[in-house]
Amino acid sequence: MLDSIPSFTRLVTELTKFPGIGSKTATRLAFFLLRQTSAEAEALAGAILDLKRHTRFCSVCYHITESDPCQICTDSARDDRLLCVVETPQDLLAVERSHSFRGRYHVLHGALSPLDGIGPNDLKIPELLQRLQPGEIDEVLVATNFTVEGDATALYLARQIQQSGIRVTRLAYGIPMGSELEYVDEATVNRAIEGRRKID
Amino acid sequence: MLDSIPSFTRLVTELTKFPGIGSKTATRLAFFLLRQTSAEAEALAGAILDLKRHTRFCSVCYHITESDPCQICTDSARDDRLLCVVETPQDLLAVERSHSFRGRYHVLHGALSPLDGIGPNDLKIPELLQRLQPGEIDEVLVATNFTVEGDATALYLARQIQQSGIRVTRLAYGIPMGSELEYVDEATVNRAIEGRRKID
Repeated sequence: MLDSIPSFTRLVTELTKFPGIGSKTATRLAFFLLRQTSAEAEALAGAILDLKRHTRFCSVCYHITESDPCQICTDSARDDRLLCVVETPQDLLAVERSHSFRGRYHVLHGALSPLDGIGPNDLKIPELLQRLQPGEIDEVLVATNFTVEGDATALYLARQIQQSGIRVTRLAYGIPMGSELEYVDEATVNRAIEGRRKID
Repeated sequence: MLDSIPSFTRLVTELTKFPGIGSKTATRLAFFLLRQTSAEAEALAGAILDLKRHTRFCSVCYHITESDPCQICTDSARDDRLLCVVETPQDLLAVERSHSFRGRYHVLHGALSPLDGIGPNDLKIPELLQRLQPGEIDEVLVATNFTVEGDATALYLARQIQQSGIRVTRLAYGIPMGSELEYVDEATVNRAIEGRRKID
């Protein structure tokens, strides 16, 4: 029956392009929009267009920004000698939320994945190596994901960067805060035992 | 950190207005849009605007439509003497999907709910009663939801309509197809026993 309402089916098609939104959810969202006023629908459409119009990637760190370079790159209170490498802007935000890193960032926009044909030149890796001028950076903290691709990327970066004498570190593996040991998977327990630390 | 990217936070705010979409999902959707091309974002924004521009409610049955009266109201193969009353366009679609109703529809756009201040005049009930000209309609099938509000609406409509000699029916209560009796709630079993039918 919805075939007779092309503008409705077209919106449902557009909404199902979102990850995690199937046709049932898309239909529900479209019906919701139908009940909204035109002004409300225009506010949403405008916000979508403005996002694409006003945001870009920072030409230094490749985080999303409206001004270039971004607010983090231009923040004089941050440590220039410490660089955190993440896969995505979302990962950068996760590190920021921890309030425990006060250096600069570099967003790779992905991880190495030879099976998917993603090599160093498909990521912002050449741009990262370019930033690592001798004597200017002390440490690169690799905060890629703890997946096969993230691990491979960390290893690749460590090999590339360590040659130049810069210290390369990785986030610690271990038991998440608030966990009950009984329910933690064995690979994580294994890594946590390997990485055990003396209690001071 | 996203405070420095107002177009991003604005889109997240707009997306969280959708039912069932919280700030985490909205952020994920916004990041997805950020990775789309401008053309893709424009297609989505255009679809939202077109939905509001091109759709309206049918002036006869109040279903959504692009042409007025709608395709169902103008379908000459349907039975004019049989009218199905539903709460929402989504409910109409659910009845259509069953392929077992070939009459016309009337969409109330809600159900009676005195506690929420929703009375007959807040729904398309006056318009429904207006359609029920004596001698033109044999049966009104009330397919409101099986909730307190849906039940109250069905009872109200039955009282209003039966006076005029039109037969008013309701969808059958009972055990859903494919159910295991063990897991069906007792109120439904109760209704199914009350409504038991002779096996022919």
